[in-house]
Amino acid sequence: MSEVSLVGIVMGSDSDYPVVEETIKVLDRFKVPYEVKVSSAHRTLERTLSWVKNFESQGGQVIVAAAGLAAHLPGVVAGSTSLPVIGLPIASGSLSGVDALYAIVQMPPGVPVATVGIGAARNAGLLAVQILAAGRESLRSALQAYRRELAEEVERKDSALLAKLREKTAVRNS
Amino acid sequence: MSEVSLVGIVMGSDSDYPVVEETIKVLDRFKVPYEVKVSSAHRTLERTLSWVKNFESQGGQVIVAAAGLAAHLPGVVAGSTSLPVIGLPIASGSLSGVDALYAIVQMPPGVPVATVGIGAARNAGLLAVQILAAGRESLRSALQAYRRELAEEVERKDSALLAKLREKTAVRNS
Amino acid sequence: MSEVSLVGIVMGSDSDYPVVEETIKVLDRFKVPYEVKVSSAHRTLERTLSWVKNFESQGGQVIVAAAGLAAHLPGVVAGSTSLPVIGLPIASGSLSGVDALYAIVQMPPGVPVATVGIGAARNAGLLAVQILAAGRESLRSALQAYRRELAEEVERKDSALLAKLREKTAVRNS
Amino acid sequence: MSEVSLVGIVMGSDSDYPVVEETIKVLDRFKVPYEVKVSSAHRTLERTLSWVKNFESQGGQVIVAAAGLAAHLPGVVAGSTSLPVIGLPIASGSLSGVDALYAIVQMPPGVPVATVGIGAARNAGLLAVQILAAGRESLRSALQAYRRELAEEVERKDSALLAKLREKTAVRNS
Amino acid sequence: MSEVSLVGIVMGSDSDYPVVEETIKVLDRFKVPYEVKVSSAHRTLERTLSWVKNFESQGGQVIVAAAGLAAHLPGVVAGSTSLPVIGLPIASGSLSGVDALYAIVQMPPGVPVATVGIGAARNAGLLAVQILAAGRESLRSALQAYRRELAEEVERKDSALLAKLREKTAVRNS
Amino acid sequence: MSEVSLVGIVMGSDSDYPVVEETIKVLDRFKVPYEVKVSSAHRTLERTLSWVKNFESQGGQVIVAAAGLAAHLPGVVAGSTSLPVIGLPIASGSLSGVDALYAIVQMPPGVPVATVGIGAARNAGLLAVQILAAGRESLRSALQAYRRELAEEVERKDSALLAKLREKTAVRNS
Amino acid sequence: MSEVSLVGIVMGSDSDYPVVEETIKVLDRFKVPYEVKVSSAHRTLERTLSWVKNFESQGGQVIVAAAGLAAHLPGVVAGSTSLPVIGLPIASGSLSGVDALYAIVQMPPGVPVATVGIGAARNAGLLAVQILAAGRESLRSALQAYRRELAEEVERKDSALLAKLREKTAVRNS
Amino acid sequence: MSEVSLVGIVMGSDSDYPVVEETIKVLDRFKVPYEVKVSSAHRTLERTLSWVKNFESQGGQVIVAAAGLAAHLPGVVAGSTSLPVIGLPIASGSLSGVDALYAIVQMPPGVPVATVGIGAARNAGLLAVQILAAGRESLRSALQAYRRELAEEVERKDSALLAKLREKTAVRNS
Repeated sequence: MSEVSLVGIVMGSDSDYPVVEETIKVLDRFKVPYEVKVSSAHRTLERTLSWVKNFESQGGQVIVAAAGLAAHLPGVVAGSTSLPVIGLPIASGSLSGVDALYAIVQMPPGVPVATVGIGAARNAGLLAVQILAAGRESLRSALQAYRRELAEEVERKDSALLAKLREKTAVRNS
Repeated sequence: MSEVSLVGIVMGSDSDYPVVEETIKVLDRFKVPYEVKVSSAHRTLERTLSWVKNFESQGGQVIVAAAGLAAHLPGVVAGSTSLPVIGLPIASGSLSGVDALYAIVQMPPGVPVATVGIGAARNAGLLAVQILAAGRESLRSALQAYRRELAEEVERKDSALLAKLREKTAVRNS
Repeated sequence: MSEVSLVGIVMGSDSDYPVVEETIKVLDRFKVPYEVKVSSAHRTLERTLSWVKNFESQGGQVIVAAAGLAAHLPGVVAGSTSLPVIGLPIASGSLSGVDALYAIVQMPPGVPVATVGIGAARNAGLLAVQILAAGRESLRSALQAYRRELAEEVERKDSALLAKLREKTAVRNS
Repeated sequence: MSEVSLVGIVMGSDSDYPVVEETIKVLDRFKVPYEVKVSSAHRTLERTLSWVKNFESQGGQVIVAAAGLAAHLPGVVAGSTSLPVIGLPIASGSLSGVDALYAIVQMPPGVPVATVGIGAARNAGLLAVQILAAGRESLRSALQAYRRELAEEVERKDSALLAKLREKTAVRNS
Repeated sequence: MSEVSLVGIVMGSDSDYPVVEETIKVLDRFKVPYEVKVSSAHRTLERTLSWVKNFESQGGQVIVAAAGLAAHLPGVVAGSTSLPVIGLPIASGSLSGVDALYAIVQMPPGVPVATVGIGAARNAGLLAVQILAAGRESLRSALQAYRRELAEEVERKDSALLAKLREKTAVRNS
Repeated sequence: MSEVSLVGIVMGSDSDYPVVEETIKVLDRFKVPYEVKVSSAHRTLERTLSWVKNFESQGGQVIVAAAGLAAHLPGVVAGSTSLPVIGLPIASGSLSGVDALYAIVQMPPGVPVATVGIGAARNAGLLAVQILAAGRESLRSALQAYRRELAEEVERKDSALLAKLREKTAVRNS
Repeated sequence: MSEVSLVGIVMGSDSDYPVVEETIKVLDRFKVPYEVKVSSAHRTLERTLSWVKNFESQGGQVIVAAAGLAAHLPGVVAGSTSLPVIGLPIASGSLSGVDALYAIVQMPPGVPVATVGIGAARNAGLLAVQILAAGRESLRSALQAYRRELAEEVERKDSALLAKLREKTAVRNS
Repeated sequence: MSEVSLVGIVMGSDSDYPVVEETIKVLDRFKVPYEVKVSSAHRTLERTLSWVKNFESQGGQVIVAAAGLAAHLPGVVAGSTSLPVIGLPIASGSLSGVDALYAIVQMPPGVPVATVGIGAARNAGLLAVQILAAGRESLRSALQAYRRELAEEVERKDSALLAKLREKTAVRNS
């Protein structure tokens, strides 16, 4: 992480980390430099704001903000930067993440948050990479390779299931 | 409003005012000095924070924060003060205020927001008065008088309905 | 608990106690004297009402009322006092506490309940302390200290996560 | 209404009357004596309770309780009588009556409320009549006649629609 | 069960039995004779209908119908009798009983179902007893005794919790 | 309608007709013979059942059943035939058709209902045609022609919008 | 599976297979030839489309498409064929399948998907058989036999429960 | 629009245009070249796919896809490109856009869609500009200017409201 971080990942609580880890794995895979921060929109607001300013001024390009419950972190971050902010709703508590989804996606006019699905940490990472891929041809190629892999994985699973079903039928018919 | 404001009312957008007006009427009725602010958790965060600090340092006691959609204002205010913060969810847009309700009430541990019903501006005002009534005997008495009025209003409406029904029956039987 | 109770905690069923315990811990921490009551809005309504009257007449200042399902306790208590009433929705049964949340927060005009999140017992306690802190300088200071602790805890967790991630990277690179 | 009222209809607010009127029409049709009361579970609780006791002691048999928002009236009434209580949720405010439905139907064990659909005032009346029909042969016959009428109305509408469609086809084919 | 059954309990599937058992316990406690039937609104509709007719003609007074998912049984039963029908929504499958609740409570005008909470089998039984208590003084007294027991149980639990808390405090202070 | 009806359209109430009319238009367009019935799952159950039996025995192939609220009609019909039954949820009352959707789609194992969207009457008709097209080559071709028309309509609208936007730009630039 | 497949089953991910297996069991029971495919609406769209075209051109008659989350597979398949498409929503992730249900059933006008309940894989299979039974007398008879079995199963369970309850009563009375 | 389009806006139906117009206004304001397309994920899938491929190959950078109901367009587009895709849920029909929101945001792993609020067309445009601003200093500055304007607008509205309130008070006090 000695390079300039292109992606800043901030989460409201370290209990979000097991979900956010998937975002990190994606960035590692695409060799995108990033930094990770635990900071709250309520308990450490000033610290969150100065991290955002710092991240932006040092050349950061995209922020991923993860939070659960009344998830204000992505919106508050989005309100203090002109960088694109990806909001990752975390399922936590009785409402299974619907609270976090609404609190992240329903932003007022003027302050967008690019929201991914509840707990969709891998997609948060991929979206960051897609955004970064604009002027970076190697990332674009890596994304295309990734999509081919996804497709091949589906095909492999299709073949495996077919084989399993044939075997069953054979056993049943024998 | 020359006295020290005891209640600070802040709303995310001036379009919330027609709802918030009911809060103001309650405070007027109880002769509680207040001040009103339009300030956003996203567009004018710094300004919101300095208003909160200022309000608190000048002797303010309770804050009412109204917002719709992904309503972050009450939570952000609550994160920057130790005064009690009353959250008033405003119905706006496709989700009829459920988004605002969840975004206000589901606060993480450590940062409570005292939430009232969707659009329940009168209750926001009354709750502020109840909180202020602690060391203020005259407010306590005024609240008790208010509750008696509410009860009398119900009784009056009951009598009126009864009269109406009797008349109907009389007409039908004549 | 020999002093005058400032906070009255009432729950509809003793099965709510494991959640409500967090409220008690907060009050213990802030050395706020309180009393605890199991009493129902349906099964022991008269007893609930006389407890409320008694609590108020003996100098009680804030009530926390916890209930699940069609949670009427907070509203019924609020209807019989002019003290501020904090409603704590308990998740119980098939609807995961949404029923309790709606039955507590959507109070009709004239009878507010200061609602916290589903199961947010710690916040119920903190809100009570914030309300009490009005004329009590030491409570105000204690709340500010508490907020600093919350902030420091976030910072500690941030450092811990950072250390963990660095270690991982080091291992991976070695 | 000089006879003993068999059904007591209570509503939380006179604004519920336009809905509740359908209940009254049903009782009028079945010549069931009833009385109507506006009384609140929060603003006039004592009055509500004494009305219930009075109604029961004077030979009342079934109570219909209508309320909107955090609808506590049916449950509070049910908690203070052993008569069957029919709960009628009224749609009012942003949540379209889902709040009232949950606050009425999700009663804790021991205190049932017989809930009908949101705004289903006619069904509230019919259910009251069905309950009263137990030892009253003429009511039972009247209910059966009513059901035949409902069936005939469906058949009449079916014929009318068929005629309309045939006419359309004839016009189209001519 | 040699006496005439006053309550008929019908469930759509025997998998509903573990919930419905609570209804039976209540009826046993109040010594109300009942009969139990597994019969479906879809798979054995004719059989369901003839059971209803039979039950009614032999002097049955109230029907409890339990079902999950798209719960049609209570409504179909209600459509074929003028007896009061109590609908008991069972939580089953992904929607946690909200599907069953809506499919039972939202009956069209003319065909009421007296709906209790999701899985509220005890309340279904109590509501049946309340309905039966009309011309049966002993049942009315038993219901009043039951309500006193409920109240005493709450008081006992209140004392037990108080004792536990006192002990804790004593230990802490010692 | 002198031919054998292939599609039977049944609705719970004639108030559903304005929605169901779209289904009829589709069948008219594809020249599929049909019949229309108003009959209720609750008020005229026997009549509904005998219509279903009759329709099936006379060579009917698909049934479209429309209903709102606790929509039991499609399921009850499906329980009494082995023909495919298409369920059309109608939005009516406070829950905007979610009640009807759940009451139709969440059928128990063994009795499927082919559900279309809330108010999606056109799709109900098209699904009926798709099912009938199996052994009917001309219907298959007509469906393919219909799909081409849909595509062409999209393209026409695309061109129209493009033209409109170009004009706007031209005006702005002139 | 050497015969021409009449039913094509496609699922978005092999993780859907444990649910879809119930569909296969139904088809096996009715001796309906089928084929199974794992293919995605997003990762392998072209492959999905060519499978659909191929399946249709080789005489396939009905498609069952299963998917979870933002379930696009059934709709995308329906958009590329005039065969009837059965959509099977899979519960997966925080929203328990409501997301999949809405994403499948709420198709725009012109492109119906015949939706079954969340996870209702058996019903998906039965609906396919019902659709195929049109020109196939043996399937029609088999469906009728199946329905008789379902009815007998209910009756068997009814008897078993009755026996169990009698035994209990006997034990209690002895 | 003679320059290379950086943003491609695609909507499922021209009825979405009145909402999407706000997106266009934002792009006009920031002088970002764009193109607009009406094309469906179901009715004109191939055409949609070739538009996407074309747009990408000619240097397009971001796609905004708007759709209502079972909104598949954004996901299908995202599945066929490695460009970032912004999903704009349109409220349409009985479910007020919740169906569209879930169908857009809950994408499976590997295929993210950057979702904005229901009907939040302005935010869709702003997010596109934020993404494009990466290597474009003038856009970054324009965004910062835009944010200042937003803040100033809030301040202006705050002053206007304050003036209005002062006037009212003056009138009341005079």
